[in-house]
This record gives sequence, C-alpha cells and structure tokens, in this order.
Amino acid sequence: MRAAILAVGSELLGTERLDTNSLLLTEALLRHGVELRRKSVIGDVEQEIGAELRDVLPRLDLVLLTGGLGPTADDVTREAVAAALDRPLVADPELLAGLERRFQRLGWAMPAVNRRQAQVIAGAEVLANPRGSAPGMRVAAGAATIFMFPGVPSELAGMIADHLEPWLAARSGGVSRETAVLKVAGLPESLVEERIAPAYEEFGREAITILAKPSDVRLLATATGAPDERRARLQAMTGRLAELVGDAVYSRREEDTLESVIGDLLRAAGATLAVAESCTGGMLAERLTRVAGSSDYFAGGAVTYANRLKTALLGVPEALLAAHGAVSEPVARAMAEGVRARLGCDYGAAITGIAGPGGGSEEKPVGTVHLAIAGPAPAPGRPEVDHRQLRLPGDRGRIRWQAVQLTLDLLRRRLLAAVPATPAGTAGDDAALAGGAGAGAGAGGQPRRAP
Amino acid sequence: MRAAILAVGSELLGTERLDTNSLLLTEALLRHGVELRRKSVIGDVEQEIGAELRDVLPRLDLVLLTGGLGPTADDVTREAVAAALDRPLVADPELLAGLERRFQRLGWAMPAVNRRQAQVIAGAEVLANPRGSAPGMRVAAGAATIFMFPGVPSELAGMIADHLEPWLAARSGGVSRETAVLKVAGLPESLVEERIAPAYEEFGREAITILAKPSDVRLLATATGAPDERRARLQAMTGRLAELVGDAVYSRREEDTLESVIGDLLRAAGATLAVAESCTGGMLAERLTRVAGSSDYFAGGAVTYANRLKTALLGVPEALLAAHGAVSEPVARAMAEGVRARLGCDYGAAITGIAGPGGGSEEKPVGTVHLAIAGPAPAPGRPEVDHRQLRLPGDRGRIRWQAVQLTLDLLRRRLLAAVPATPAGTAGDDAALAGGAGAGAGAGGQPRRAP
Repeated sequence: MRAAILAVGSELLGTERLDTNSLLLTEALLRHGVELRRKSVIGDVEQEIGAELRDVLPRLDLVLLTGGLGPTADDVTREAVAAALDRPLVADPELLAGLERRFQRLGWAMPAVNRRQAQVIAGAEVLANPRGSAPGMRVAAGAATIFMFPGVPSELAGMIADHLEPWLAARSGGVSRETAVLKVAGLPESLVEERIAPAYEEFGREAITILAKPSDVRLLATATGAPDERRARLQAMTGRLAELVGDAVYSRREEDTLESVIGDLLRAAGATLAVAESCTGGMLAERLTRVAGSSDYFAGGAVTYANRLKTALLGVPEALLAAHGAVSEPVARAMAEGVRARLGCDYGAAITGIAGPGGGSEEKPVGTVHLAIAGPAPAPGRPEVDHRQLRLPGDRGRIRWQAVQLTLDLLRRRLLAAVPATPAGTAGDDAALAGGAGAGAGAGGQPRRAP
Repeated sequence: MRAAILAVGSELLGTERLDTNSLLLTEALLRHGVELRRKSVIGDVEQEIGAELRDVLPRLDLVLLTGGLGPTADDVTREAVAAALDRPLVADPELLAGLERRFQRLGWAMPAVNRRQAQVIAGAEVLANPRGSAPGMRVAAGAATIFMFPGVPSELAGMIADHLEPWLAARSGGVSRETAVLKVAGLPESLVEERIAPAYEEFGREAITILAKPSDVRLLATATGAPDERRARLQAMTGRLAELVGDAVYSRREEDTLESVIGDLLRAAGATLAVAESCTGGMLAERLTRVAGSSDYFAGGAVTYANRLKTALLGVPEALLAAHGAVSEPVARAMAEGVRARLGCDYGAAITGIAGPGGGSEEKPVGTVHLAIAGPAPAPGRPEVDHRQLRLPGDRGRIRWQAVQLTLDLLRRRLLAAVPATPAGTAGDDAALAGGAGAGAGAGGQPRRAP
C-alpha cells in the first residue's frame, strides 16, 4: 500500500510552525508496512487541496488529510474533498444532534457556524471524535481511500488509535516492519556509502538508509515480513554492514552516543579521563558530561584559550609554544600529557586548532587541528600518546564540532585497543541481534552499559 | 509570485526528522512578498519528484527544491528534474576540478561517486556552494523557475543569501514586509507575555509574535506597507516592547546571542573573563567561545567535575567543601573568586549544581544550582561577588542549558552595571531603528560589536 499525507492549514506555511501531525500518522503507517510516498502542507485554499488530490489519487492507495475541519470560514477541507470527488455535501442529522448536545454540556448555545461540522461527503463513513467538535471521515475514491482527520494533535492521536490503526491492521495482518541501527563515527558519508555498496546489492537499496551529519553517520537497516523472517534478515544485514564498515561502527543501539560509548569503555576499564581544549573551548568536556553518571570516570578539564594558560594550567613549556606555535603536534601532545599528569587521570585528551574565521595562515589555514590522547600504552611497544592532524572544512561551528567528534573517536579507538576483549552476546534478543558485533567493533567488541 | 517548496529525502518521510529547511526558504519568500502555496516532502524517488514538478510547474511561478544533490546513489534530484524537463545532464569540467581540489585539501582522494556532483542540467545556471560539495542550480521551466539547493541546513542558509535573495530582490522591487526582533533572556515566556499585553492591544495581536525556548525568548514585531510607513511602525512597536519588557532585553539584532553581547561588553570595557564549571561541564565556556574573536577577552576556564579539582585548580578550601558541600553558595563564590585570581582575569564566573538525574537529596534536589560572578565592584559600596541560587525544572539537558543561560544573563547585567554609558544610535539605519535602546538595555545601552 502506498500513502500520502496532506496537512491543511495556512499557519503551517509560515516561518514558525511545522506539521508535526504527520509524524504520528507516519508511525502508524510504518508499523503496518504502508509505504509513505509523500507528504504535503497546503494552506486553507480549496483549489490547492483539490489539485493535490487530483495529482495523488490516481497513483496512490491511501491519502491521510489533517486539518481544515473546523467550523470557521477558512476551514475548507470538507468542501475541497467533496469538489475533487465530485460529490455533494449532505447534512447528517445525527451528527448535528451530537454537536448540539456537546455544546449544551459545556453550557453554551451552539454557534451557527458549527452547523458546517455536521456536513458529510455523500457516501463517506463518519469517524467519531469524542475529544473535539470536528468529526473525521473516511471516503472511497476509486481504488483509493481518503481519511480526513482534525488537526488538533491530541484529537488526531485519539482518532489514529480509534479509526486508522484498526483499519490498517485489518489490511496488513499486523505489524510487519522493523529497523536496526548502526552508528558510525569518523568517516564521511561518501566513504561509508562506498564501503557498504556490496550490501546494497545483496539486500536491496531500499532496505538500507544512510542518515548523516558531519562525522556522525547512522545506518538504518529495515526488514519487513513475518517476525522470524525479518529478525533473521535484520541480523544478516547488520552483521554484513558491520563487517563492511569495520571499526568505525561505534554502536548498534539507538540511544548510544559516542560519549556514552566512551563512558562504557572507561567504566569497564576502571579508568579516569581529563581533557584540555583550546579551539573547541569546552565542547569536548560538555559532550562527555552530557552522559548522566559521567562523574564516575570524568574528572574535569582545562579550557586553555589563552596561551599563557597552556603553560600555567597544563605545564606546556613556553619554549615549545614559541618554537612550534600553539597549534602544533608537540603542543597537542604536551597538553594531553600535561592534563593527564596534573589532573591525575589515566587518560588525557587534548585539542588545539584554528576554528576561524580569523587566525589562519598559509602554513596553518583555518581548519588546522591537532588532537592527542595520552594514556597507558595499549600494548607493549605501543606509544603512550596518539596524535592526529586534521584539516577540517566548514565554518567555525562545524570545525569545532568535527574536531570534538574526531577526538572522541580517537579516544574510543584507543580505549578499545586497551580494554581486554569481553565476551559478546551473553543474553537476550538484543544481544543475539548484535551477534556479529566483534567484527565491527575491533578487538574489544561493544561493551554494554553497566546496568 | 506564487511558490512551492519541495524537500527531497527519504529520511524526511520517517518518524524522526522534519523538513526544517523550508522555514529558512519561507522567511526569504515572505520578505519579498512571494506567496508560498504549498510545501511537500518526497523520498529519493525519481518518479515521485517528477510527478510533483509536473503537478505544480503549470500553475506556480517558482519551485524551490532542497536535498538529493549529494554524491550517493540515492541522491536523484538532478536526474528527476532533468527528466521532468526533458533535458540532458552534462558534465561540467570546472565543477569537477573544484570538487577534486576540495577533496585534495582534505587529504583524501575524491571517491568516484562524487563525480555525479559535477553533472549539470543543460541550460541551468550553476549556483556555487563554497560550504559543501553539492553545487546548486537554477533552471527555467516555461514561465516558471526552479531552484535546486543542497539539503544541509548550513549550506542552504548560505545559498539563500548568495543566490535566492538577490534573485528575489531583483523581481520583487524590494522588500515589502519587515520584521524587527527583541531578544530577551532570563524571563519565562509567560512573564514576557504578561508584560507585553498592552502592546498587543495597541498594535494588534497579529503584529507581535513570541518565540520561546527556556530562558530565551524572541519577540518579533512585523510591519508591512511602504518603506517609510513600516519603518515608523516598527520603531514604535520595538520602542514600546522594550519599554514593557525592560532590561531583560539583551539585543535588537537577530545575529546577536547572549554570548556575543557579553563579548561586546567585555571588549568595550577592555576586561577579561575566566569561568569555572561543575555541573555544566564546559557548556559555559563552549557558549562563550562560539563567538569568533572571543580570544580577545576570554582567557579560558576550568571544568572541575571532581571535587578535588575544585581545590587543586581553583583553590576552593577543602574545609569549605566539607562544611557546605560542593553545591552551595560559599563554594560557588569561592570558585568564581578562585578562577578569577588563578587565571588572572578581571571577571570570574562559576556554576555548581545538581543536573541529575542522580545526586539529588531532600535538602538539595535535582535542579539546585548556584551561580556566582566575581569582578571589580561595579560601584562604590557594591559587592565584588554576585550570587544567585536557582531551582531549575526539567531534565539534565535543560537544567544545564538554563544554568548556563542564566549565568550569562547574570554576567551581562553585571557588566552593564559596570560599563559607563556609551552614546547610542550614532549612525546608520540600523542604529536609528534601535533608537530607543537605552530604555530596554539599562544604563549601558547596547554597545555595538567592534567593526
């Protein structure tokens, strides 16, 4: 089944409101395996609503309208649909009596304008709306079906449960669609896409969706069909995607963030962390402390925006700053080692860079960033300090965000290399679904949050 | 002129994302008196995009598309528009060279898939996108015009300014609707609403809009008509609103933020600032350093999440912590004084609190926060340290955000009290519009950003 959603209301075409009703409708559609092809927002304009219906009715099976069923002159959804279907509106005496009773209960005389809400498209099924005065309608239009719902969100939610869900269930045979997620850090969208290309071929392009922000990509795998079948398919898809993307996958749980995964790793290792930031100005510490309970492993940090503070708070030698400049590999390393030692933590993470728009030079343009992680050597012979140099695109905000994201990812990889492997998939459906995690998450697997 | 907006992206048809790009486009359209007739969201499906274009092109003048211009296989907007217009796609060698240079700068080889982004619809004008890899296009379709923009919001915003606004301005004969803003900090929406009630009566309810986030309210005053007339009306409205809201108004410029206004005040005073944070974990420093050039006045700070760091980095006496607890007035004061003295700045700001969800007690529930500002006494006989205790509602994220916002506001008021009054409205249209600023901004007026 293919569906369209149409939200009616001129206020939804301004600069301040968005149609959020469609999210409620979409949830119901997806649960029942209905494909949402499009959604539109249209003002309270009869001819525009009619044009939309004439466009979509011949090619889709289901059209869900919200809004424009009120009593006032600018509520024209009833008239527009009737005109588009070439059917008359007829007064429904039962509806009218119900409306009058409703107003009586509230102690008011029914305003004359509300009589319009008792008008029904000939042949339509009236859908009761006990939460408001605007009844809904369901009407057949050739092979397609139109639902008309009120735009008030609380009324709509009730009517989805009362009228739409049962109708969809009768046609779909129950819930039939499930989604699994892989969260990926530190790779641009196009590289992720290149890596997973074989999975598109194996499972079909429409089964896999990439949702990307800079340096933070979510892969959604979707399966339909009977419960056992779609579970097996999801497991196969996520296993294959994890294999293809490799250790850039940082979690298979929607609620995880890079900072929560790092928290899990630090807690599992019984280790503590401190950070030193220059161009990111506190954003790294802020990300880490978004996690409730982060005080278990995060001690704090220094925002050393002024160079003199790099010396005063972190012990970066003045001579090093003079020789290499604040944005340099030696200074990033000294910041990480300094914050680790001075704040007495197992790990120190440091960022120094040029976020712009000013401050760039030919040698060190805006976007030049040095990251460093100091900590116990992850294995004999491995260095204590990891360093990475970046040349980031974008504006100040984006450079800062990416610098933090890539520092978190560098730290995650370092912790994975240090933490001894934990047994994966111990119990439960969720763990079973994550069966192939070892392949995607490097030597350490995906430690799970402490209960 | 009548317009439609079309957002392309299958992720916008799920339950997790809304098309917010259309709000940016709508703003530009309204400014130039263009009527937005409809907006639609369509998946990355060529035939569906084509159907929409065939539906709207014959009856509207302007179609604005966003999204689907990326490099990956599911980005089909280019192909869909070309097919709907029955025109070929041709490779643009200059675009291709630019893309290759972009990837070189990032230190990567350009993935083969990105070559698609150099494909242009025959006869289309290429719209440069210096902020990303997807160029836009403008193409004539009979009497109508189609704009194609990337879906990344920051890239879109830049392209609206660079390409759409000038095009609209050339056709609309100039702006016909104007909005002025007052930005308000530290008051809840309902109190702002109460204060401005008289202005609703005087100017009409539809002329004034309140847009609110917790502790950050924007008041929009809108006027239409001939330039002189609407300017006069806007000036009357904003003057009256500023008078009613009082010194909670922190700016009349849309681009200002609380942190940029504080930067202006610090720069005007030639003063420096350091911060000490506990529960906000770096968010205060992060906000302050969002402002380009903040290194002129912001030295840095300490995130003292662990209590021992409050002593080690800020010199908060252990006895004080033991006697009052970390979340207390004496500790907040000691943190502000400590960071001011140890980091050698004119002002020190400090936050300590319980952001939750754990850590609360009967005496100090979640949401208890102490703020302090240390600095030179603003006037003879006034104290050096200001303190404020809060009991904030909401979850961890909201408590942290509000704590930072109210600390910034406390700092702003302190700086206003300290900075000698500067002459307001010296030159230019903008300054003239802000003529009544003195009333809204307290003794100090609104210092303008240094050029």
